[in-house]
Order: sequence, then structure tokens, then C-alpha cells
Amino acid sequence: MLKDFLIAPGPTPVPNEVLLEMAKPIYHHRTPKFSELFYETIQLLKYLYQTSHDVFILASSGTGAMEASITNTLSPGDKVIVIRGGKFGERWGEIAEAYGVSPIYLDIEWGHSASPSQVEELLKENKDVKAVFTQHSETSTGAMYDIKGIAEVVGKTSALMVVDGITGLGVSECLTDKWGIDILVCGSQKSLMLPPGLGFLSFSEKAWKMYHSSNLPKFYFDLKKEKKAQGDKTTSWTPAVSLIIGLNTALKMIKDEGLENVISRHTYIAEAVRAGVKSLNLELYAKNPANSVTSIKVPEGVEGGKIPKIMRDKYGVAIAGGQGHVKGKIFRIGHLGYIDKSDLAVVFQALEFTMRDLGYSFEWGSSYKAVQEKLYMEYKNYPTR
Amino acid sequence: MLKDFLIAPGPTPVPNEVLLEMAKPIYHHRTPKFSELFYETIQLLKYLYQTSHDVFILASSGTGAMEASITNTLSPGDKVIVIRGGKFGERWGEIAEAYGVSPIYLDIEWGHSASPSQVEELLKENKDVKAVFTQHSETSTGAMYDIKGIAEVVGKTSALMVVDGITGLGVSECLTDKWGIDILVCGSQKSLMLPPGLGFLSFSEKAWKMYHSSNLPKFYFDLKKEKKAQGDKTTSWTPAVSLIIGLNTALKMIKDEGLENVISRHTYIAEAVRAGVKSLNLELYAKNPANSVTSIKVPEGVEGGKIPKIMRDKYGVAIAGGQGHVKGKIFRIGHLGYIDKSDLAVVFQALEFTMRDLGYSFEWGSSYKAVQEKLYMEYKNYPTR
Repeated sequence: MLKDFLIAPGPTPVPNEVLLEMAKPIYHHRTPKFSELFYETIQLLKYLYQTSHDVFILASSGTGAMEASITNTLSPGDKVIVIRGGKFGERWGEIAEAYGVSPIYLDIEWGHSASPSQVEELLKENKDVKAVFTQHSETSTGAMYDIKGIAEVVGKTSALMVVDGITGLGVSECLTDKWGIDILVCGSQKSLMLPPGLGFLSFSEKAWKMYHSSNLPKFYFDLKKEKKAQGDKTTSWTPAVSLIIGLNTALKMIKDEGLENVISRHTYIAEAVRAGVKSLNLELYAKNPANSVTSIKVPEGVEGGKIPKIMRDKYGVAIAGGQGHVKGKIFRIGHLGYIDKSDLAVVFQALEFTMRDLGYSFEWGSSYKAVQEKLYMEYKNYPTR
Repeated sequence: MLKDFLIAPGPTPVPNEVLLEMAKPIYHHRTPKFSELFYETIQLLKYLYQTSHDVFILASSGTGAMEASITNTLSPGDKVIVIRGGKFGERWGEIAEAYGVSPIYLDIEWGHSASPSQVEELLKENKDVKAVFTQHSETSTGAMYDIKGIAEVVGKTSALMVVDGITGLGVSECLTDKWGIDILVCGSQKSLMLPPGLGFLSFSEKAWKMYHSSNLPKFYFDLKKEKKAQGDKTTSWTPAVSLIIGLNTALKMIKDEGLENVISRHTYIAEAVRAGVKSLNLELYAKNPANSVTSIKVPEGVEGGKIPKIMRDKYGVAIAGGQGHVKGKIFRIGHLGYIDKSDLAVVFQALEFTMRDLGYSFEWGSSYKAVQEKLYMEYKNYPTR
């Protein structure tokens, strides 16, 4: 008997409360019962997004919501800036190019972050840029970007600020309205503690203005249709009912914990992970590491591809390897969503076993010691249930 | 205490076996475990489709799969024939127009069916037609189309035969390869006994040829990316893991029952529904009624909009009203997917109560009598469990 754990940057574990809610008999989506749940869910999403803008729920993965950000605002030939510092920055560019939009790439070394001044400079050189596309947290490298700073420089221009917050929202502070984010994309299988299958995005007034001048073709992801349907407390196409029921439950859990507490939990969990990693003399890959995922350089002499395999197949803990050109060179521990101190005990136990299997030297329990030291101050004053 | 029943044309009831399978802890999709399940599921789908063509699973509603049929095969200005005899025929046209494709509409009176000869004539008049779009069963009217006959005339030309089988597949005979269907679209929340959130489509060699000359923009629904990923037993974007796990279970249930038996069950259930309806002196709306949904004219003097409302809110049975210009003029009983004789006892009980509430005259139990008479011959020789 071996227990399985999912400590990866997505999908993330789904709480039993959510699984069981989704396991209830399905009901029809064109009913007052579903309309009320749907309306309430939209309001809860607005709380998570910290926005009064429109927020949409799509039956798609996060990539579908990324595509919707482009097709609902731009036209062929439009110039946009794409911050490209990992696999998901590349994806913004691939979608833009597939639709005939012309990206100017701000290429960032993987593991590094773009600075607001770099974006400002590019915007000055290209006054006709229609939108800036970036990640909040680049899942492939574990790097966090300064979205507040970038949004500030973009906000001084007529360009839209479009953020892939798939591993940022509900993990780190992200104030959609206050910071001036026009479109914030998210997906269900990350901090939202749900199975994959839903994409989300917020859409500002500035984005709606762009909608009206955009002539890229769209139908399934046409947000005007979606907005009209949402006015009637429904969706334009058949919604993914069970996932939206789960979303309602998950968002209530987030609201009950309080968004500030959720972000604080992600912050100290991430700090403890980094402390544990360093205690094993392993090196972090990201210069400005995100609170969602910790990417770790594979040490000299260790076969990198084996780390996630042994973790999963021998010790029951699913983490992630590297993607693209850092495959085999880094591995990634995800710690977003339904994650608490217990998961760190589990993941470092398996990591110590795995690294020892691979001939890497360290003192047994050193990662525990570091995690305990870091976390105890957070849990010391916890109220007793 | 009032038990709730879903006897609507979709979503349809999800068997407990499927709900519970989907309620198991989620696992990562980039693992051998998921790859094997995914590969097996694709094979099971090919059995349901009766095809050796490619079959794709999309994280979207059925409308997303309809859109994929268009964006993966056509170019702006391409001429296509759209059979338009209800809300879903209209949808084919709306998607085509949104992408700059030029539909020639074969307009059919709602409730009627297109004949192969009408299609043949249009094809003769328009030799440059690239594709013919139709429904197998027009869910909004309950009319069944002669797909075998239409596919035969289309197959004599270079045009693609594209069928929305969302309420046809797994309900009535539909031989993708033998009949020459190039693209067959389906969704999860119908005969497949799943919650909504997955779209499916098959894609023939002829369709792939069209793919290579098509220049409509696409990314999220790009089937070439999907085919490449499927070669590695995975999907191009994060798949809707829990729904695919449920799909695997549901398809095994269909295979265990046997596709012929599944279709036979849908056939005699539909016949019994029609017999029950007629016994109440109610009139069928569709001339050639489908086995998926029975549409019924609201009798004179009865307020049509109230029928589904009372059925659901007072008697716990969700059916559907009319859509578009037949709203309030027809109502629809869905009988596809996880439906057996017991559901007919339930729906006719509630229907008799409801019609009596609305002042409609009939003899108590007459619909039961008709249903019993019709069904008994089917169940008489059932093996005892």
C-alpha cells in the first residue's frame, strides 16, 4: 500500500468537499437552481479577482481563455508586446501568430523576470502597440513577474494589459482593478482546487472598447455572446455544470479562509519549500521565485529526468520535471491550491529518499529541519480547533 | 421530500458508477496512468463512432467541436451547404458566417427533415461546395434526418460530409466510415451519460486533405496539434481529466451493453414515449421523430410555458420547453443516455399530473397503459439477473 500525492504545479489536489459536491446527481443548466449558483459563482470569482469588471467562465482549458483574450480584442496585423521567458510566454506568441497578430518579443532568459523599465522602453519605441501579454508566474520556470510595476507602465499608454494568472491568481497578491489589469486569465486546476476543464478571464471597459474595433473571427469564445447570456444568469453554450458546481464550493472555501490568508499561506509554504531545497544544497532555478511552484536545478552528476519518475513511481509523490530546453535540467515542486504544511512533510520525505537513491549526498532530515524552523512561527499561534 | 429526475434532451442523468469514478482523487495528466486511460478511451470512442478515422476529445462543449469542424477544414469565402431546420442547424450557419465562410441554406420547416434529393439538387447547382453541414437529430425540434441517404449523395462529390451527431450518436445507428461521414461531432452530456464539458469529433482522410488547404485561423482547436499529441497518448492542452475518466467508465458501460443493444433500447424507449404521448391525444411535432427526444405540440387552451415549469417545480421531473420561435408551442421529453423503462413510468406520471393541473382532459393512467403495452414485449424475454 502506497498513498498517492499530487504536489505538482497543476493539476493540483481537489479537496474531498469539492469532489463529493461534483459527485451529486447532475441537474439541468437552464433552471433557476443553476442560474442562482452560476450568478453566485460569478460574484465569488470577482472577489478572487478583486475586480468589478466582467468575469467569464469558459468550458475550456486555460489556453482557451488565453485565445479568447486575443480574438476578442485584436485584428490581424496589430502590434503587441509578448514577454517571453518560458513555455507559457511562448504560448502567448504562438496564439498571436496563429491569428495574424504581430508580436514584438521581449525575450527574457528562462528563470529571470521582465522588468517594468524594459516594457516601458519597448512601449516608447512602439507607440502603436495594442496590448502587452505576460505571465504573473511563469509556470515552466517558477519565475514571478512584477505585474504591478508592468501594469503601471502599460496603464500610461493606450495598450491593454493582459496577464496569464493561471498560477498567479489566488497564490500571490493580484489586484485586477487597482493595478490596472485589463484581462486576467486563469484556469480551474491550479489555486482553484478543481479538476481541469474551466478557463476564466476578466474583461475591463478598455478591453470592451478594443472588442468593438477587433475583427478577428470568433464564435465559441465570443465574449459578447457570453456577456449577453450572463445578463440572463446563464452561459451562451452548455456550461460544464459539474465543474461549475465544484467551483462554487472551492470559491466558498477560499472566501471562508479569506483571500489574504490564502495568499499568506501560499507565501509561507513557498518560503518553507525554498528553505528545504536550500538545506539540501540544491539550487533554485528562478531568480525571483514564485509562490506557486519552486523550480530546482538538477545537481551535477544526478540524472535529472529520473527525479520526478522515482518520486512518483517509487514514493507516490507526483511533482513535475522541466519543460522545453530545461527538460532534465530542472524539476518543479508545485505548492498551490489545496496545500498545507503536511504536504511539505510528504514531499521532502520523498525527495530525500529519491535524491539518496540517485547517489546525492546530504544529511537525513536536513530538509525537515529547515521546513520545521521556517513553518513553526506561522503555525505557533494558530487557534486550536 | 421530492425526488428529482432529469428526463431532458441534455444534460442527461449521469450513472452513479460514473459520478463516483469522477469523484476519486484527481491525478496528473502527464503520467503513464493517464496516458493509458486516454489511449483506451480513444479506442472505445472509435467503437462508439464505428470508425477507424481519427477521433478527438476537446475540453469544450459540443459547440466548440462544431467550430473545430469549420476552422480545421475551410477558408474564408468557401461555399458550404447548411441544412437549417432548427436551432442547431442555425448554429452551423452562425459559426460559418462568423468565420467568413459562405453558407447556402437549405431551409427546412421546423419539425421536418431534409431529403437526400434536396441536397443532391443543391450540390448539382453548386459544384464548388466544399462541405455539407447537417444534424443527425435536430434537438430543438426532435426531427431525425436521413444521414445515410444524405451522406450517399455528398459522397459522390468532393464536398465533406459533416454531421452534428450530438443527440444522434449512441442513440440511432450511425456508421461513420460505412456511410461516409467525414466529421461527426458529439458532446459528453447526451448519450454518453456524462456531465457537459467535453466535445468530440471524428476526422477522415478527406477532412485532413481539406485541413492542409484551409487557412482559417485556429489555435486552441487546431486538430493537427491534437493529432500530434495523441500520437504521444496525450492532448495538446491540459485535458479535462475527471471528465475523461468518467468518459472511460461510460464508454465501457456502452461497450458492455453492446452498441446494438444500446441503440435498440433507445429505439423501443422512444417508441413507447410516442405511444404514451399519443394516448393522451397529444400531437407529435416532428414528422420523422428522433429516438433522442420527443417534441410534443402544446394542445389548444393550455399555457405551454407552464408545462416544463410545473413538471420540474411541482413534480421534480426536468424536461425541456421549446426553443426559438416554438417557445411555448412545444415541449420536449429527452430519452437518451442513462434512461430505461423506469424513467418512462416517472415522466408520464408527472406529465399526467401536470396536464390535469393545466385543465387538460384525459383518462388517468392512459399513458401508462400505452407505455406498458409497447414496452412489455421488449422486456418480456429479458434474462433474470
